Amino acid sequence: MSKLSTLQELLVHELKDLYSAETQLIKALPKMAKAATSEELKAGFEEHLVQTKVHAERIEAIMKSLDESPRGKTCKAMQGLIEEGEETIKEKAEDPVKDAALIVAAQKVEHYEIAGYGSARNFAKLLGMDEVAGTLQETLDEEGATDKKLTQMSRNVNVEACELGSPS
Amino acid sequence: MSKLSTLQELLVHELKDLYSAETQLIKALPKMAKAATSEELKAGFEEHLVQTKVHAERIEAIMKSLDESPRGKTCKAMQGLIEEGEETIKEKAEDPVKDAALIVAAQKVEHYEIAGYGSARNFAKLLGMDEVAGTLQETLDEEGATDKKLTQMSRNVNVEACELGSPS
Repeated sequence: MSKLSTLQELLVHELKDLYSAETQLIKALPKMAKAATSEELKAGFEEHLVQTKVHAERIEAIMKSLDESPRGKTCKAMQGLIEEGEETIKEKAEDPVKDAALIVAAQKVEHYEIAGYGSARNFAKLLGMDEVAGTLQETLDEEGATDKKLTQMSRNVNVEACELGSPS
Repeated sequence: MSKLSTLQELLVHELKDLYSAETQLIKALPKMAKAATSEELKAGFEEHLVQTKVHAERIEAIMKSLDESPRGKTCKAMQGLIEEGEETIKEKAEDPVKDAALIVAAQKVEHYEIAGYGSARNFAKLLGMDEVAGTLQETLDEEGATDKKLTQMSRNVNVEACELGSPS
């Protein structure tokens, strides 16, 4: 195990984690889209897949500029988040309840990324890497916007799920 | 596997997940406190442990009122988050870099809980369970406050880490 001696090393470490998270998500999002029953949610996951590929490419470019590889770390937190998402996909559920559950899983993923990108952006800023910080801020803004869109979509979905009535 | 037929069933499902997350965190926080090098961060983790125990008790009380058990689910996302936290604990690092990394791990945990409690509170509100929603809001506010405190602590820690200079 290498030693983390500087904040720049911690930034690289965090970017490797986020790169692993994004590449895992690229594989998971098509399954989430397939499992979603509302067309709006399905389209939302597909749109976020396009964004997620860009987010991964941005990390590749940043790492290239730092003369580092984006690979070499497995984000175990995202593994767990995706495992939970897959359980949700397999779960037998009424349509709106399934969509409500998929939105919960997706928002947990977004929150993970928001925490990760927020820290990485702070590190880059402090290190005077303004361009890197700016790129990370762009991704952070997009993850935040996705989280808000999911909250918006959940409003209708949750009301529909609620109208299914009390458990028998 | 049982079928999720109603929003109330999804609420119970989510609360079991959060209960598993909180109980895992109760075991992990003393290790995080031990690994922290700054006294302020150590005290912060210890304080959050006390809160986390209350959060678990609140879920127990809610589940009792719903005639459900809080047990029976393992939160795999929290397992992954804690595995990452344990990697950070073991990582060889200069003191402020170690603290900066521990704060990142802790904020990821807080964000997971914020997403989970936020959804559960929305479900409870829609279901007309005002008391449950109020209790979940209390926990949500405390998780949010913890996240803000961690951001505050990270400011000094990150500057100290930054002053260690560039990688050799």
